[in-house]
Amino acid sequence: MSAAPLRLGLAGLGTVGIGVVKIVQRHAALIAARTGREVVITAVSARDRSKNRDADLSGYAWETDPVALATRADVDVFVEVMGGHEGAARAATEAAIAAGKDVVTANKALLAHHGQSLALAAEAAGRVIRFEAAVAGGIPVIKALTEGLAGNQIRRVMGVMNGSCNYILTRMQNEGLSYQEVFDAAQQLGYLEADPNLDVGGIDAGHKLSLLAAIAFGTRVSFDAVELEGIGNVSIDDIRLAEDMGYRIKLLGVAQLTGRGLEQRMTPCLVPADSPLGQLQGGTNMVVLEGDSVGQIVLRGPGAGEGPTASAVMADVIDIARGLRLPTFGQPAATLATPVAARTATPAPWYLRMTLLDKPGALAKIATCLGEAGVSIDQMRQYGHQGANAPVLIVTHKAARDDIDHAIGRFAGTGVLVGAPVAIRIEEV
Amino acid sequence: MSAAPLRLGLAGLGTVGIGVVKIVQRHAALIAARTGREVVITAVSARDRSKNRDADLSGYAWETDPVALATRADVDVFVEVMGGHEGAARAATEAAIAAGKDVVTANKALLAHHGQSLALAAEAAGRVIRFEAAVAGGIPVIKALTEGLAGNQIRRVMGVMNGSCNYILTRMQNEGLSYQEVFDAAQQLGYLEADPNLDVGGIDAGHKLSLLAAIAFGTRVSFDAVELEGIGNVSIDDIRLAEDMGYRIKLLGVAQLTGRGLEQRMTPCLVPADSPLGQLQGGTNMVVLEGDSVGQIVLRGPGAGEGPTASAVMADVIDIARGLRLPTFGQPAATLATPVAARTATPAPWYLRMTLLDKPGALAKIATCLGEAGVSIDQMRQYGHQGANAPVLIVTHKAARDDIDHAIGRFAGTGVLVGAPVAIRIEEV
Repeated sequence: MSAAPLRLGLAGLGTVGIGVVKIVQRHAALIAARTGREVVITAVSARDRSKNRDADLSGYAWETDPVALATRADVDVFVEVMGGHEGAARAATEAAIAAGKDVVTANKALLAHHGQSLALAAEAAGRVIRFEAAVAGGIPVIKALTEGLAGNQIRRVMGVMNGSCNYILTRMQNEGLSYQEVFDAAQQLGYLEADPNLDVGGIDAGHKLSLLAAIAFGTRVSFDAVELEGIGNVSIDDIRLAEDMGYRIKLLGVAQLTGRGLEQRMTPCLVPADSPLGQLQGGTNMVVLEGDSVGQIVLRGPGAGEGPTASAVMADVIDIARGLRLPTFGQPAATLATPVAARTATPAPWYLRMTLLDKPGALAKIATCLGEAGVSIDQMRQYGHQGANAPVLIVTHKAARDDIDHAIGRFAGTGVLVGAPVAIRIEEV
Repeated sequence: MSAAPLRLGLAGLGTVGIGVVKIVQRHAALIAARTGREVVITAVSARDRSKNRDADLSGYAWETDPVALATRADVDVFVEVMGGHEGAARAATEAAIAAGKDVVTANKALLAHHGQSLALAAEAAGRVIRFEAAVAGGIPVIKALTEGLAGNQIRRVMGVMNGSCNYILTRMQNEGLSYQEVFDAAQQLGYLEADPNLDVGGIDAGHKLSLLAAIAFGTRVSFDAVELEGIGNVSIDDIRLAEDMGYRIKLLGVAQLTGRGLEQRMTPCLVPADSPLGQLQGGTNMVVLEGDSVGQIVLRGPGAGEGPTASAVMADVIDIARGLRLPTFGQPAATLATPVAARTATPAPWYLRMTLLDKPGALAKIATCLGEAGVSIDQMRQYGHQGANAPVLIVTHKAARDDIDHAIGRFAGTGVLVGAPVAIRIEEV
């Protein structure tokens, strides 16, 4: 073992931090065999030192202030698993870079908001920032995209990247429960963030998508340009009717670069029930990468939890120990293009659900509106009347979202619609 | 662009070689942006210069002898996509290393047979050998296992890694055709190697499994210790009856390190029909990696073809261009352990199909044999009589293979069996 040990300063001793401690302790010999050097923790920090934790921390120096930890002379790599995109996490990460440390972080929010400036600072200082754990937990998707598919022009990146949302949607589907019922159960089980809107509002998954998009398309992270729609309006009716047509509803992130610019959206979508995305159950994550040479690669695995997230953190640490060094987003931050944000314009089939008054010609009026907006119908089902009303389901052929919006705008003038129609994009996978 | 161009010498201008040429030409700017240097081809070689090829090769020097190509002064990386584990491929790879070149190869047979000696030679010379394209085509599985999961002790590696076999099995399943019918069709379509036993005998997939096992468990490649059984004996009856019990039959590779040693097998197995492996259709490949921290990661993608395989070759080339350098099998070849080859002993449920004479007590005699061998029955189905005979299907609880073999040995003495029983392992996934 000729090389000097690689010394980690670990900020954050929650689930993930303790997972990192356990791997470093349990697999010291394995890691040394794989990297040719020892990987050790020299110091740790967390808010509450007195808290009882499921690991032996007695051999490590303790810092109350993560900035002090990040700048210690006996730390080579600052490992940030505290979370939060401002405050201590940001200050400590900036301090670490300024002090010449490499950074490994699980913090998707921090990078979604400040990735460009942090990457520029790190590259100016000759340091790396690694964030495998920030996207899709244990799935090595950052590495697959940045390195494994580096010979490809990426066509599209998709993913189910928030396990809590997929847990809620699949429980609704499997048990026929309402959104609110499953949401409440998930909250009681501790499956949701303290601010649950980070999960169910699609924000957390949107952060992850914006990081994948930057790597895929060589553009600066632009989280603000992600079209976000959470799962709060997904109804059990839509889940059932979609299933009836051969689809499942997922909170699906999609990023693609088109002639109009970069489309990024994290919204409920229909996907074919028999596709890998459609088959995905519970808290598992899935990312689909499409390249011009490779075609479609699908990666599936646990998106959260102590072991999987710590596994991803350690992959980054081990890369650093092995001397594998890359710019944060795969190419120098200064060369990343500023993306033109494009509202989703790529045509897709759409699922439209509406309730019509039981009047002669009602359906014809809706069909006329669609036709006038240039939208043609692929499948239509009218279900048994509920009193004087008839639920109607339409799957369109590929249509631009503007045309769908246009058609829906015309529906109001027909006088046959009860309530507002539901429109959900069908992503072709 | 400060760094010198990285110069490739490309041996082999078949499908994959031409795919590499196309990526290098089409994505010169993209690759330069991602690596910080130009990647160029300086020379190529193939058996027949006069053959018409779907790419412009006029800018490249031509060598008839791949050894001459591998040792050219204007070549930094020898890219070997010729195939064959002896002869020119081996000689040229050895010559490249001796001449101080890095090597990128798609040649699973070469590495399965000579990986240890080639890795030792490369590491002694300070050179790397990369082989992402050798396993599961476009899926970046070597990188995922060597780097992405480097913080894990690997528990098990599984995979469907021969697209032709999966194509044959899924066509049998979907169309109710016999093995021979689909085999003949696949051969006519050019889906099989010139020696089809490389595919249907499990040899090609076994080569790949032996490479994954070496990385996963830090052991020398030991292809000779892989238990091989091809798909030639898989009958449409077994495919149908397995489906009836909720299973599908796959040519599945499994490697795991147990207290008794390294188990490596490439054999037909039953897997649950609703698992990712069970859902896999056609020529697509799938690899399942299981680590002690990460749990289960599933990778799915095209296992062959021009674009996917060239994508994997280029990932390796780009790693070299970026200065990402690792020992061939993830740790120095000299530190790889010599594995103790263990005949599969990990207990599993088994699928047993047999035909019994329609005599009173026939089934009881079979059940007694199983009980005496310590094998208990989970499910049993007796199908309608076919003349005087009754097809019987048994799924056992977990049992060691020796116990299953023992029970089957006893069956013969009962005098109630017609023909030989079929026994197929059910891999729990």
